[in-house]
Amino acid sequence: MKLHEAATAPNCRRVRIFLAEKGIDVPVVPVDLGQAENRQEPFRQKNPMGRVPVLELDDGTFIAESVAICRYFEQFQPEPVLMGGSDPEEAARIEMWQRRMELEIALPIMQVFRNTHPYFADRIDQYPDYGEGQRSHATKRLEWLDKELADREFVAGDAYTIADITAQIGIDFGRVTKFKVTEETPNLLRWHQAVSARPSAKA
Amino acid sequence: MKLHEAATAPNCRRVRIFLAEKGIDVPVVPVDLGQAENRQEPFRQKNPMGRVPVLELDDGTFIAESVAICRYFEQFQPEPVLMGGSDPEEAARIEMWQRRMELEIALPIMQVFRNTHPYFADRIDQYPDYGEGQRSHATKRLEWLDKELADREFVAGDAYTIADITAQIGIDFGRVTKFKVTEETPNLLRWHQAVSARPSAKA
Repeated sequence: MKLHEAATAPNCRRVRIFLAEKGIDVPVVPVDLGQAENRQEPFRQKNPMGRVPVLELDDGTFIAESVAICRYFEQFQPEPVLMGGSDPEEAARIEMWQRRMELEIALPIMQVFRNTHPYFADRIDQYPDYGEGQRSHATKRLEWLDKELADREFVAGDAYTIADITAQIGIDFGRVTKFKVTEETPNLLRWHQAVSARPSAKA
Repeated sequence: MKLHEAATAPNCRRVRIFLAEKGIDVPVVPVDLGQAENRQEPFRQKNPMGRVPVLELDDGTFIAESVAICRYFEQFQPEPVLMGGSDPEEAARIEMWQRRMELEIALPIMQVFRNTHPYFADRIDQYPDYGEGQRSHATKRLEWLDKELADREFVAGDAYTIADITAQIGIDFGRVTKFKVTEETPNLLRWHQAVSARPSAKA
């Protein structure tokens, strides 16, 4: 088993943190995003979308999409529970929060980067106005998340889950585009300090 | 148990098709999107994101996010398998394809609508150039999906799964913004005719 990934990509960090929390060690094959290795052959045979990370199983199967890779390991080794076990309500609650963190926070923050940062200027069509709109959207959602976290320790409830990981990698990636968690959102700050203090945060 | 939803919203149709395939009947409470009922109290207590669908459980718990609602029913009644059972590789493969259909096809098609259609002109900030960029992105991905479907019957393999449902609701919603599956993409057309002929398509 091998994980094809890049140190700087937030979706790769999501898988690294997930694996660290599970205590699973997977050999890594670095993909050079700077040289656009992900957008060319032979990488495109692993994932035609040209995105990292990709998990290569021993039988040669490729699993792309960071959350799908996490799902593989969740079922492979259920403990500690990060995506929900056999209880339908728990699994649905975690998935609801995972999706909110992804679609309302991590993805908008990544869109700010893609649409406004010089790194992507020569790589994709950028829409800076849309990027700034996504900044405003993510900022409002972070203020909302701050209020949600007044009542509980973690994003999806009393236990740490993949929803925390997704929020964490989104928010931390936002540093490049000037997102910062401050005392203006005290509950979010407390949560952010807690997840950042876990050993997995270094992954 | 009740499903708060709207007939015209593609994410609501995703849940309706999923339930029809499972043979599960859930009473529906209509939400009036035209009157923006979803963006006001008391609906926002059910889902602070202001989006449909929302599943209300008998204990008063609200589950938002269409895929999280599907997850609830998948674990509640595993057969027929639509999201993957206990085999880690199967579950990860289905989730990979579900996410590709969502992030690369359904979501871009919804972004075309949100950013270019008069319906949203007074409701949100629109970025028409971004919307047209998403049209081009989705069109390329549909051409890629056509090639993928040359080798197999359904999106994630030989069996019908949630990945087919997500592609179906995305593509069908695209009619409003002039997406059409034609003989230029013959494998996609064959697949689209097959999923459209299933009784669940009427849901």
